[in-house]
Amino acid sequence: MNLEGEQMRVGILGATGYSGAVLFSLLTQHPQITKIDLYGHANREPDRRRSLVDEVPAYSNIHAQLLPFIPQTIMETDDCLFCATPAGITKDLMEPFIAQNFPVIDLSGDYRLKDPLQYKKWYHKEPPAEQLLTKADYGLSEFLNHPKNYIANPGCYATATLLGLAPLVLEKLLEPDSIIVDAKSGVSGAGKKLQPSNQYTFINENAFLYKINEHQHIPEIMQQLHKWDPTIPTIHFTTTLIPVTRGIMATIYAKAAPQISVAKIQEAYLHSYSHSPFVRLRNETFPTIQDVKGSNYCDIGFNYNPQTNVVTVVAVIDNLLKGAAGQAVQNFNKLYGFEETTGLPALPSFP
Amino acid sequence: MNLEGEQMRVGILGATGYSGAVLFSLLTQHPQITKIDLYGHANREPDRRRSLVDEVPAYSNIHAQLLPFIPQTIMETDDCLFCATPAGITKDLMEPFIAQNFPVIDLSGDYRLKDPLQYKKWYHKEPPAEQLLTKADYGLSEFLNHPKNYIANPGCYATATLLGLAPLVLEKLLEPDSIIVDAKSGVSGAGKKLQPSNQYTFINENAFLYKINEHQHIPEIMQQLHKWDPTIPTIHFTTTLIPVTRGIMATIYAKAAPQISVAKIQEAYLHSYSHSPFVRLRNETFPTIQDVKGSNYCDIGFNYNPQTNVVTVVAVIDNLLKGAAGQAVQNFNKLYGFEETTGLPALPSFP
Amino acid sequence: MNLEGEQMRVGILGATGYSGAVLFSLLTQHPQITKIDLYGHANREPDRRRSLVDEVPAYSNIHAQLLPFIPQTIMETDDCLFCATPAGITKDLMEPFIAQNFPVIDLSGDYRLKDPLQYKKWYHKEPPAEQLLTKADYGLSEFLNHPKNYIANPGCYATATLLGLAPLVLEKLLEPDSIIVDAKSGVSGAGKKLQPSNQYTFINENAFLYKINEHQHIPEIMQQLHKWDPTIPTIHFTTTLIPVTRGIMATIYAKAAPQISVAKIQEAYLHSYSHSPFVRLRNETFPTIQDVKGSNYCDIGFNYNPQTNVVTVVAVIDNLLKGAAGQAVQNFNKLYGFEETTGLPALPSFP
Amino acid sequence: MNLEGEQMRVGILGATGYSGAVLFSLLTQHPQITKIDLYGHANREPDRRRSLVDEVPAYSNIHAQLLPFIPQTIMETDDCLFCATPAGITKDLMEPFIAQNFPVIDLSGDYRLKDPLQYKKWYHKEPPAEQLLTKADYGLSEFLNHPKNYIANPGCYATATLLGLAPLVLEKLLEPDSIIVDAKSGVSGAGKKLQPSNQYTFINENAFLYKINEHQHIPEIMQQLHKWDPTIPTIHFTTTLIPVTRGIMATIYAKAAPQISVAKIQEAYLHSYSHSPFVRLRNETFPTIQDVKGSNYCDIGFNYNPQTNVVTVVAVIDNLLKGAAGQAVQNFNKLYGFEETTGLPALPSFP
Repeated sequence: MNLEGEQMRVGILGATGYSGAVLFSLLTQHPQITKIDLYGHANREPDRRRSLVDEVPAYSNIHAQLLPFIPQTIMETDDCLFCATPAGITKDLMEPFIAQNFPVIDLSGDYRLKDPLQYKKWYHKEPPAEQLLTKADYGLSEFLNHPKNYIANPGCYATATLLGLAPLVLEKLLEPDSIIVDAKSGVSGAGKKLQPSNQYTFINENAFLYKINEHQHIPEIMQQLHKWDPTIPTIHFTTTLIPVTRGIMATIYAKAAPQISVAKIQEAYLHSYSHSPFVRLRNETFPTIQDVKGSNYCDIGFNYNPQTNVVTVVAVIDNLLKGAAGQAVQNFNKLYGFEETTGLPALPSFP
Repeated sequence: MNLEGEQMRVGILGATGYSGAVLFSLLTQHPQITKIDLYGHANREPDRRRSLVDEVPAYSNIHAQLLPFIPQTIMETDDCLFCATPAGITKDLMEPFIAQNFPVIDLSGDYRLKDPLQYKKWYHKEPPAEQLLTKADYGLSEFLNHPKNYIANPGCYATATLLGLAPLVLEKLLEPDSIIVDAKSGVSGAGKKLQPSNQYTFINENAFLYKINEHQHIPEIMQQLHKWDPTIPTIHFTTTLIPVTRGIMATIYAKAAPQISVAKIQEAYLHSYSHSPFVRLRNETFPTIQDVKGSNYCDIGFNYNPQTNVVTVVAVIDNLLKGAAGQAVQNFNKLYGFEETTGLPALPSFP
Repeated sequence: MNLEGEQMRVGILGATGYSGAVLFSLLTQHPQITKIDLYGHANREPDRRRSLVDEVPAYSNIHAQLLPFIPQTIMETDDCLFCATPAGITKDLMEPFIAQNFPVIDLSGDYRLKDPLQYKKWYHKEPPAEQLLTKADYGLSEFLNHPKNYIANPGCYATATLLGLAPLVLEKLLEPDSIIVDAKSGVSGAGKKLQPSNQYTFINENAFLYKINEHQHIPEIMQQLHKWDPTIPTIHFTTTLIPVTRGIMATIYAKAAPQISVAKIQEAYLHSYSHSPFVRLRNETFPTIQDVKGSNYCDIGFNYNPQTNVVTVVAVIDNLLKGAAGQAVQNFNKLYGFEETTGLPALPSFP
Repeated sequence: MNLEGEQMRVGILGATGYSGAVLFSLLTQHPQITKIDLYGHANREPDRRRSLVDEVPAYSNIHAQLLPFIPQTIMETDDCLFCATPAGITKDLMEPFIAQNFPVIDLSGDYRLKDPLQYKKWYHKEPPAEQLLTKADYGLSEFLNHPKNYIANPGCYATATLLGLAPLVLEKLLEPDSIIVDAKSGVSGAGKKLQPSNQYTFINENAFLYKINEHQHIPEIMQQLHKWDPTIPTIHFTTTLIPVTRGIMATIYAKAAPQISVAKIQEAYLHSYSHSPFVRLRNETFPTIQDVKGSNYCDIGFNYNPQTNVVTVVAVIDNLLKGAAGQAVQNFNKLYGFEETTGLPALPSFP
């Protein structure tokens, strides 16, 4: 599409949520983008103009009002739309853009699953029409080539889990029915909505499991895993909330396939990721959540225990960067042929 | 031994560490104890009298000096000794007490393992003599009956893991070679020693795995599991540090044995724990770390996922109470025939 | 009133909030109390019986239902009522008890101020009738003697500030118009109500001032200060929320009166508090919030800087203990002539 | 000096500390800088080459070794040196650079004070020679014009306090002897050195004052205030550590001078900062620490309470950005005539 060097104008729908706000911050630093338009979707406070700073006081030097969401106007004004509205709401809002094959990076879950029945089962909502779903590409950046104009950005848990599993699944180094994922997440993943489980007094000095066997990222993980190895029956996947604002750690356990060796595992990871600037491998140690905070990196470490014949993989990401807004920018770069790292931070935030 | 109603005088060796300080606090509230003597072990600052408050400023209303550690004097003065010194140091210090069959509750790891070779392998230190080891009972309170005079109090990870697994292992409801434990712990479990991994800037907003396949609580877990089911080859056990001061969550995964059912699992837990005042069962939900903070409870919840055939068990404890000082008092109560709950808090600290 | 040794039955109205839940926990350990009845006030979910554990899952071993709030029945059943309902709601609920001179310890703000106009100004609600207000005693325990049957338990900020200031104000060691209080508080002081300012992502890694010049604890501080020294015009009082669950630190600054000396300050504190078991003085250092966590202590330290002629006083409390439920029990003990420390923890929670 | 557009090569001495690591991260994004050389100072581990990643594991994609510190070589290789070594060590290391008038941005405290006796008094170390001190400019960016080649970057507390006070002091709106600063700081300000007061278990759920009347940033604050108003006798300045990794909040109290008004205060702030891109004013509300996290902004809010005649000013910064590495880059930009904001993040990190 566009050649590098071209200057672009983009829109963000839903910039007041956590992912949207981070996305806005990243795009302001993107050298190929000259203007960012912010849109508020129509069915919320229709008669009052809101500003970004009303909901993100830290951005007090930004004086951007939310423009009304009129798809046709957006398609005439902008070169590309980022959509950071919640699952369930996105579905209808994006129909006109899909119909006209307008470039969209969608951070929600609405167009990730190819099978409408799966969507209905896991999201408990009406799915988009099947022919719309076929127009979207699942945007796990490291495995995305020649994307379609509609990119469904993966979920945060799915990103960490899939990047950690991919090399071992692709090279069939694991027993297919033995995969267990114990994923830990920070609080920002749950969004800004007020709920008892987001309160400081509940989160602080605590840890708890939630959505047991019911997390809506499970089907997108399975959909992608089946592309790589249709023999995997399913995975066991739990989510534990820990008291940090940002970060996901996917700890993956699986029985090793016969004739495995540490060298073979290393090779598999190198084979998959030697050209991936945002995957950093640690063969002998495990990464920490702080290693990737504020960055688009996915750090991956593994260990093979011959006594238990279990391979342990740990993949960590910043859920709002690589797990949401960062990967969205990475996908934007891929869609337009920019260098994959353009506009993304070179280093994590430390300390 | 002593009948209920008798008033006792006890000693604590090592009251300035986290476990020791909590133990002191508990024993001051124990209705059967009239006096507590604090001892400092000899090879540290021999010529200076230290006070408890020097190392625990929060106890500023306590004016207790550390007395010199002279075993014979202790045995003449006190009815029972609690020992909260580190592994490796405890071994020699406790020999005279074992030799004279004097009642000791030992919070360290030195006398937990029956096999000296296992101690050497996991602790990287010289083990106690085998005949001394036979004099000690492994004090997992819920499974301790008619204890010997030397009680080796279990490790914190071991307590949560064993209480979570016991009913399922005893009733053979799990595939023996499939057990994986993903244990999360707060920072106080690592003790007061200054180290980079205890610094606030490293722990805060972070999570990380440590001692991969090398945690010294693994052998005591296996020793106890083998008593219940010798067919278990080993377990896969990882430890992840999370940013809380207190608390352990052991998340246990295992493939279900054939013909399992939720009802059978429930029965197994009820069978094991219906008379255990400090085990609280939650059949349909998982407990949180806050549910047990500041208490001696072990809260256990489970879930069976028929799609993956995996049983998930979550057991949570306060690592300094049920995982250390609280269980020590519980064992003291068992040793002397007091009501098991005597001197222990009735409710967790909330919020 | 009652002699020591008498066994009592008490009620709690509002046990599901933070203060109420802590109060329940304390009262279960109080040796003079044999039974605790829990009441839910009528205008909320009238037709459904609620249990304490529904709102405090950590108390899962307690099977107490909330009884309907019928004042006459309560006065017939219980010897004393603790009221932990919010300001504004308490006012009407307590009228029948005041009318019959029934013993009440009220943790709310409704009966603290003698002047109804002050209540109206600071609480923005209708005040109780003036003749009811005269029936209540302001229960700053260390300065409460021969209390009336209705004790209005002080606010958390007021407790720390007043205990820190009392000796210096009583002995006129400060310039009356120079007092500035920079009070820091943990989050639990704001109660359980869902609000954006209680969310983890907002509180974590943050600090912020709130209720500038408008905190409703200011008038009760002034009311009490004026009893001690009517020449104090007013104090400057700010509140800063810091990311801890529990704890208040009142940092008090004031210009020293002429001829002040460190010795005079020390004497003043000793004079006020040498018989107060819950005030711990630190002359040369300042206390930390952790020093009092989980206890009913108020730790106070001071410093005099001759260069600036400023006295700095730091008073710390656990806002839910000495700042709410703990002081309520202390006042209960005073009302009934029990030892002041009865049923209260002897030591803070450490670490 | 250099014209905009020129590409530069710079060195960092001390990149492994917190400030140095953040500085490195900022400089890698600076469009005018083509190469960054890292130096380790000689008297530490002389014979072993260290890498940045050894001490900052999060920077695992950076393969930079620390070069030996040879001043002459540095002056031949680099265009400018950033020095992030501790106070006391910096003094001698920088002498050759001062002697040759080589451009240096020094983040330490060694060359901030003009009066060697003040240095000796507050730092308890031997001061640099007076003639060297005259070669350095105190680099409070918003008040720095035509800087000398040696810029002593201000301390973090001093930056927040001075920026908060400057307009009111310059326009004589405060009573000179009434200024009290209650400054709160996160833990990273204390650096990486292992000490009990940096341990997680001590910091978490705590707050405490330290260096009472002794903080070494007091004299640099006074030195600068005296430039603005020599009649200020001194200020009262306390520091309270709160459980956050990053951030400083300076809460400033002072009695208002006669005839003050909110409008006059507003004018003073606008007058001082209307051309300062990194000072964001909030007239009616107070900023939070999160408002500036990860940015070079200093957000300032104020309030005037006519009842107490006290002006309250709150200034917040990220101690590692505006309080250290960010201001160093801002000063670098000023020294070389680059746009002040070059290479610095446009928005804070949210959430």
